Amino acid sequence: MSGVAKRWFYNKRPKGDLESDTLALREVALAPLQPGEILVRTIYLSMDATNRIWLSEWDSYMPPIRIGDPMLGIMIGEVEESRNPAFPAGSLVSGIAPWSDRFVTDGAGFFPFPRFEGLDLADAFGVLMVAGPTAYHGLFEIGQPKPGETVVISAAAGAVGMLVGQLAKIQGCRAVGIAGSDEKCRWLTQEMGFDAAVNYRQGDLVEALRAATPNGIDVLFENVGGTCLDAGLTLMNNGGRVVICGLIASYNSTEPVPGPYMFRNMIMKRLKMEGFVILDHFDRYPEYQAKLAGWMREGKLKHRLHVVEGIDNALTALKLLYTGGNDGKVMVRMS
Amino acid sequence: MSGVAKRWFYNKRPKGDLESDTLALREVALAPLQPGEILVRTIYLSMDATNRIWLSEWDSYMPPIRIGDPMLGIMIGEVEESRNPAFPAGSLVSGIAPWSDRFVTDGAGFFPFPRFEGLDLADAFGVLMVAGPTAYHGLFEIGQPKPGETVVISAAAGAVGMLVGQLAKIQGCRAVGIAGSDEKCRWLTQEMGFDAAVNYRQGDLVEALRAATPNGIDVLFENVGGTCLDAGLTLMNNGGRVVICGLIASYNSTEPVPGPYMFRNMIMKRLKMEGFVILDHFDRYPEYQAKLAGWMREGKLKHRLHVVEGIDNALTALKLLYTGGNDGKVMVRMS
Repeated sequence: MSGVAKRWFYNKRPKGDLESDTLALREVALAPLQPGEILVRTIYLSMDATNRIWLSEWDSYMPPIRIGDPMLGIMIGEVEESRNPAFPAGSLVSGIAPWSDRFVTDGAGFFPFPRFEGLDLADAFGVLMVAGPTAYHGLFEIGQPKPGETVVISAAAGAVGMLVGQLAKIQGCRAVGIAGSDEKCRWLTQEMGFDAAVNYRQGDLVEALRAATPNGIDVLFENVGGTCLDAGLTLMNNGGRVVICGLIASYNSTEPVPGPYMFRNMIMKRLKMEGFVILDHFDRYPEYQAKLAGWMREGKLKHRLHVVEGIDNALTALKLLYTGGNDGKVMVRMS
Repeated sequence: MSGVAKRWFYNKRPKGDLESDTLALREVALAPLQPGEILVRTIYLSMDATNRIWLSEWDSYMPPIRIGDPMLGIMIGEVEESRNPAFPAGSLVSGIAPWSDRFVTDGAGFFPFPRFEGLDLADAFGVLMVAGPTAYHGLFEIGQPKPGETVVISAAAGAVGMLVGQLAKIQGCRAVGIAGSDEKCRWLTQEMGFDAAVNYRQGDLVEALRAATPNGIDVLFENVGGTCLDAGLTLMNNGGRVVICGLIASYNSTEPVPGPYMFRNMIMKRLKMEGFVILDHFDRYPEYQAKLAGWMREGKLKHRLHVVEGIDNALTALKLLYTGGNDGKVMVRMS
């Protein structure tokens, strides 16, 4: 017998913003393990902006979650019982799983989470599972910043953004963040080593960003879309690169959202733009994680976790991403 | 004495579409040649969508033309008198010059136009000066289509579009055009060898394009923007490439124009997008022109010229590009 689990289900399609009845928490019975299966106790659940996409009907990068199905997220857990030798009891496992304190799987799509010496599990999972590889791949593989260039990052105080700015500094670039409060901007420059940060909620964003990027923008690392993307495009240098990592400004929208008004700068400034999904690049994780963990241990790559306690608060935690109410990487500690 | 010339000047900023008083034709006196200068008699003037951009106040890829300045265009002419050994009398010269039947220059920014054996001057200039290199660079250097892939081209019956589709066929791709009339669509499939063509002015463009691209779109060669670009983005395959060659739908606009509503597919379909200006790639011209001229001589690369007679009709000729009233590459025969 594997007992009972708490699990979030997709209950009702939201009109726009996530609503209190979008997801519903229920108890489910866990069937006894079949050969090849494992029982996992979830330790942390990662809250990612992209989770909202999975609840839409968009033609997306993976099949949408259907009403009545379990809500899914990226998690780390411990194998409690195992009938699968690839995942022994007591080992750490990560992957995309139901929002659930315990679940049974045959292990397909999951992989063992490495132990990173000298790093707490929360830090290792919070940085190295999603945000870190996303920042690394987007900045270095797509943005390809050269030392001395200017990198602008939107949602700079978010899980990915805070890392991108620090990676840009490691690369010898000028790092300029866009964030949603003066406090976040101060934190970026004083604690995270950004050269400048601009509050998009105050004044003329284009002019503020222009003042913060006296040499123009060479790499725009976009997490938001909307006015942030437009301000960035306005100030791009010739031959600039635009990394489309996220477009959170549009994920809650049920109406068609216009693309950037300064789209013509694709031609005028001969820009390269590329979108990506980090889930495509698991094969690069060992390399990315090794580099990121090294910088973390050396104190060159800092971060901030926003840990929400308890599976009951998971929906509240996800909503934080859409209000900017979080301070750093949002994770739910499950038990 | 070099005499008198007819020349078009930028007279009044248009509110949107080009107006009859946007440009004004005047006579100007030509000063005697100084050492290093040449007197050029213009033979053909190329009409290009991008000319409209030069009349805007946009932060563009070159300085805008100011009110009172001569209108500029890409031309070919014959050197009538020369005090510059790089451009002997009787030789052909091309470059960006005033819309003028004759003009004096020191030759900076101009280059000798090669003789292409077996090709008429009109055909050589019409294809090999702007449209051909644009089609070649955009498709092969940026779009990088593999044999068997599907290439979609907007403004497919235009100067660049008609060539892109044929180059895609040479590469072994499926070529699908978007054009503005049933007649143009028929011409593309029956005369230019496109596999299919869709009239964007009739019915649901997305559904018509979907039917014409049963395997989705791998390379989108965009000349138009607006609804054409959106329809293309909707149907892109994973890892598709979007070549931003032109956005003519927005060039006459005085209001901010929204970017594509399906912009999110940059992420969902992991797209690469790149804008370019062929003027940046003159260094590649010998290679591009040799290949294009070869295919022209072999009959593998056809084209259609829309030649307007007389400098007096130059403004009318340019307007054709914005109404779709042209049949092929628009050029003005100057005298």
